[in-house]
Amino acid sequence: MSARTVTACVLIIGNEILSGRTQDTNLNHITLTLGAWGIQVREARVIPDVPGVIIDTVNEVRERFDYVFTTGGIGPTHDDITADCIADAFGVKLVVNAEIAERIQRRPAPPDVMAARMRMARIPEGATLIDNLTGGPQGFRMENVFVMAGIPSVMQSMLSSLEGRLEGGAIVRNRAVTAHLGESTIADALRAIQSRYPAVDLGSYPFFRADRYGTTLVMRGTDESDLDRMLAEVCAAITACGAEPEDIQRG
Amino acid sequence: MSARTVTACVLIIGNEILSGRTQDTNLNHITLTLGAWGIQVREARVIPDVPGVIIDTVNEVRERFDYVFTTGGIGPTHDDITADCIADAFGVKLVVNAEIAERIQRRPAPPDVMAARMRMARIPEGATLIDNLTGGPQGFRMENVFVMAGIPSVMQSMLSSLEGRLEGGAIVRNRAVTAHLGESTIADALRAIQSRYPAVDLGSYPFFRADRYGTTLVMRGTDESDLDRMLAEVCAAITACGAEPEDIQRG
Repeated sequence: MSARTVTACVLIIGNEILSGRTQDTNLNHITLTLGAWGIQVREARVIPDVPGVIIDTVNEVRERFDYVFTTGGIGPTHDDITADCIADAFGVKLVVNAEIAERIQRRPAPPDVMAARMRMARIPEGATLIDNLTGGPQGFRMENVFVMAGIPSVMQSMLSSLEGRLEGGAIVRNRAVTAHLGESTIADALRAIQSRYPAVDLGSYPFFRADRYGTTLVMRGTDESDLDRMLAEVCAAITACGAEPEDIQRG
Repeated sequence: MSARTVTACVLIIGNEILSGRTQDTNLNHITLTLGAWGIQVREARVIPDVPGVIIDTVNEVRERFDYVFTTGGIGPTHDDITADCIADAFGVKLVVNAEIAERIQRRPAPPDVMAARMRMARIPEGATLIDNLTGGPQGFRMENVFVMAGIPSVMQSMLSSLEGRLEGGAIVRNRAVTAHLGESTIADALRAIQSRYPAVDLGSYPFFRADRYGTTLVMRGTDESDLDRMLAEVCAAITACGAEPEDIQRG
């Protein structure tokens, strides 16, 4: 495993997320999964089912990130336009993939239904398949762009099939500790600690639960010994502010 | 209320969403709230706490959308850099706002804690305030960019204070109906119906629940009579496919 930083962008394609009808959960699953593989999600976008927007966005982000993962829009209906858009973005034709077609044709159906299903066998010329362990049609990879389903269980199946097949970089580890005090109370100490560990990202995430304010302090970086030293300093700062370090986590 | 289309982009600023530590729920709340006000969220981005990324993204999207709403990064700690970035994006200075300062100073604190808190009184020159009904420091508006907290309860309070103060366009209404059949079975009928109603967006959202496949068909548009006619046609198509229209919704 190399120590370089490997980045990804996630594109959530779908009007249903932007209308508020559906609460997205795919982004969270993808970021956690890729993180464990040494791939850092650096940006995510939710975009509508509009060809020009999908094409332009794919072409922008595939240049800027090592990997791009998309969810949504690869089913059999008229609003499933992701494969068409990816082909357009790469300037290639859509072709019928024999392996997907064979899987689709295993289940008998009347001709019109089969014709609709066969839309899902169309992938951009030069793309390779992403397996779908649920038994449905596969997703596909076009260069550094991975195209997956929007249904969470199907997306998760496709993503899991990529385990061990992607080049990852250093894995970002984390430490976290919670303190029941206002962020302002510990702000100066945190700033000083952050300045001593430029390679670790120290975040302060305030919350208000059960009528009490508190903040969770999260350290993220690739060097475990840096993280441990920083955690000790943050715990000492919490104690110095008159609170107790609670719920310490190492991940 | 004008009939023009009013658009918005949402920027979720925060490493904790991109690391997967936190599941975002702010986007869903914002899209539903703005939708009811006649403002259509057309894109959302999740971006990290990196000044260059925040500044460039804000400057890109504030030109492309009528409104931009940001969440996150306006607290008192070193990692709260949103106000600084918005000032940079607009090429103005940060100034101490007397109204926020007064609210912060109401609660006594030792000098170093007060100094940290006072960071939250700094807003870009020319910005106006967004009220915060929880009693904490206010958010702010800079031209068409609305800067809100990341804590969901605080963000919701800030957003609700804007009700009736933003110009909205035509409100997008919806109809939805669920059918327990595969998408492919009804794909041809849906395509034909969509072609007859170009101003309405017809989406098909498949699901797999309790061991049954199904799809929810969602129609979104501004013309109620179009929506009703389209819903009737979709229900007839479901029946023609041998299933029953279930769970009809009007919103």
